[in-house]
Amino acid sequence: MTVGILGAGQLGRMIALAGHPLGIFCTFLDPAADACAGAVGRLVARDYRDPEGQRLLAENASVVTFEFENVPVDVVRALGQRVAVYPGPRSLECGQDRLAEKTLFRELAIPTPPYRAVNGRDELAQAAADVGLPAVLKTGRFGYDGKGQVVLRSQADLDPAWAILGASPLILEGFVPFDREVSALVVRSRTGEVAVYPLAENQHRDGILRTSVARPGDPVEVQAHGYARRLAEALDHVGVLALELFDVGGELRANEYAPRVHNSGHWTIEGAETSQFENHLRAIVGLPLGPTAPVGHAAMVNFIGAMPQAAAVLALAGAHLHDYGKAPRPGRKVGHATVRAASPEARNATLDALRALADEAP
Amino acid sequence: MTVGILGAGQLGRMIALAGHPLGIFCTFLDPAADACAGAVGRLVARDYRDPEGQRLLAENASVVTFEFENVPVDVVRALGQRVAVYPGPRSLECGQDRLAEKTLFRELAIPTPPYRAVNGRDELAQAAADVGLPAVLKTGRFGYDGKGQVVLRSQADLDPAWAILGASPLILEGFVPFDREVSALVVRSRTGEVAVYPLAENQHRDGILRTSVARPGDPVEVQAHGYARRLAEALDHVGVLALELFDVGGELRANEYAPRVHNSGHWTIEGAETSQFENHLRAIVGLPLGPTAPVGHAAMVNFIGAMPQAAAVLALAGAHLHDYGKAPRPGRKVGHATVRAASPEARNATLDALRALADEAP
Repeated sequence: MTVGILGAGQLGRMIALAGHPLGIFCTFLDPAADACAGAVGRLVARDYRDPEGQRLLAENASVVTFEFENVPVDVVRALGQRVAVYPGPRSLECGQDRLAEKTLFRELAIPTPPYRAVNGRDELAQAAADVGLPAVLKTGRFGYDGKGQVVLRSQADLDPAWAILGASPLILEGFVPFDREVSALVVRSRTGEVAVYPLAENQHRDGILRTSVARPGDPVEVQAHGYARRLAEALDHVGVLALELFDVGGELRANEYAPRVHNSGHWTIEGAETSQFENHLRAIVGLPLGPTAPVGHAAMVNFIGAMPQAAAVLALAGAHLHDYGKAPRPGRKVGHATVRAASPEARNATLDALRALADEAP
Repeated sequence: MTVGILGAGQLGRMIALAGHPLGIFCTFLDPAADACAGAVGRLVARDYRDPEGQRLLAENASVVTFEFENVPVDVVRALGQRVAVYPGPRSLECGQDRLAEKTLFRELAIPTPPYRAVNGRDELAQAAADVGLPAVLKTGRFGYDGKGQVVLRSQADLDPAWAILGASPLILEGFVPFDREVSALVVRSRTGEVAVYPLAENQHRDGILRTSVARPGDPVEVQAHGYARRLAEALDHVGVLALELFDVGGELRANEYAPRVHNSGHWTIEGAETSQFENHLRAIVGLPLGPTAPVGHAAMVNFIGAMPQAAAVLALAGAHLHDYGKAPRPGRKVGHATVRAASPEARNATLDALRALADEAP
């Protein structure tokens, strides 16, 4: 069976690697001829809107999916006329629009930070008064990895922020003094079967995810899983969905969701009975979902900009390397390492060593 | 880094799948244009002796290895003049010659079944008298999966067996009334680092491996590991090596070795900290070896001839599917499933169900 994937970055690459043992071959549509997933499947290097690219995908694939949430919704709708596309356009469209996303959270009784829609300089002033400062001004659409966001700390920040972002529909989100960010990964299949992964606790730096630690049994896990399930059901979502949440003194506030496999779930390759990549495929092609129980104590460290020496990573107890085969570039996610250990202490020791390697990478 | 592989069957395919996360890309040389590893790397579809094929491998790869032991030794020697080849020709050559192999076992004080070289019809009669019947008459070279073997049960079998096999140098091996077959997987790196995997207990039918069960702590494991280590050291072997042994009432007798990743080690993908495929790559490129400790209780079932329904396999607790992407054909290894479970009882339950699926496959 062939699965078509919009986008051929590391997420597509890891989906394809999970697909081969299932007898699933992946064909990618991505404008970049050197996209890293091309090494593990067939890459059609054309624009997402290119008719021939869409034809190749629709005619060769039994199911089409996407590896990033900024793929144009009209492309997904057009493909959906010719071939099954999962997740469906609703998951995608709502996830691309922060206001629609927050509105859906509210409808589902999933708590969020305070927010206001902002469609003019005057509205920005009112929104700032309503939610209070500090706050985060975000573009309503197409944000990714912290791009399209400006933090407002005082009234003096409003004009410069407006100058940067004012051309788009915006949303102002009250800055939540959170203790940590966690994410709940849920997978829902074409048949309605649902499974959730152990909660992940995430650390960011410069707006980019650095580490995720699996926290099965975490005090807020049941609550987070409930929200993620509710969201997946409401969207009639098929595939993996990641819900990012702030933990504010044990109270959760939903930040955003990604309708796809997620960086905070990369540890599942070694640290769960079935990886998020395999379960995404199982979900969209209609195979039974695999168990999501943890295997050992796991965590993940991203390599940003450049890879460390493979030998240094592999010499660490319980470490597993994932090189995406991408050229080094500042701020680029080029790989990650998972640690899977027999105890939290052993995991933490290797996690610390991996963090140091990630920071030292040339 | 690129690793060149002679042969592009399922073993090459699983090596390549293990290679991508390490940043290792595999290029294969194999005469079959539809060889299944072509889906996960670059396939040069040329004969092993083809100069252009060898050039493409030697010039693009940092290291060359092989996925089956019947690759012509002169090809490996020729490639070895141009690029590092691991394992070296000694491991390959000795493994291709059953008499040399048995002689080496004897030199290393690794017990074997009784055997005699047979180079003529008269010698066959004498050999049968020496080792006793029943016995197994085998070609000295190029045996694989039970091909080139005839069982002699009485004097009446000698003439027909000679008619079938008499053209080659032969070896007659006393039929050992063994309780079971086990295999010891050892991996040795370019730097001399050695690791051993938990013992595997194997079941064959019609000369083809059907199931392997990981037996860490088995009563004969220490002995088997000792033999495998001794053999790998003596051959100056680099990479994975599998030593097949008969267990005769708790006494081991070496049957043969394979200087490569081995079907009886497929369970290591999910059932060991580091798979045999990843450790083979680590060994030949000079990376630190990964731990070989078991993860849960594991076993493997081969799918011969045709694949069962993926959904039926994946619905079983702890089952992991490995479809090689090969066309069905009687007697052909087309895939396998691993079970990894929390207890031996849970493993056995899924193992039994997998065996039934394997037997029912169309």
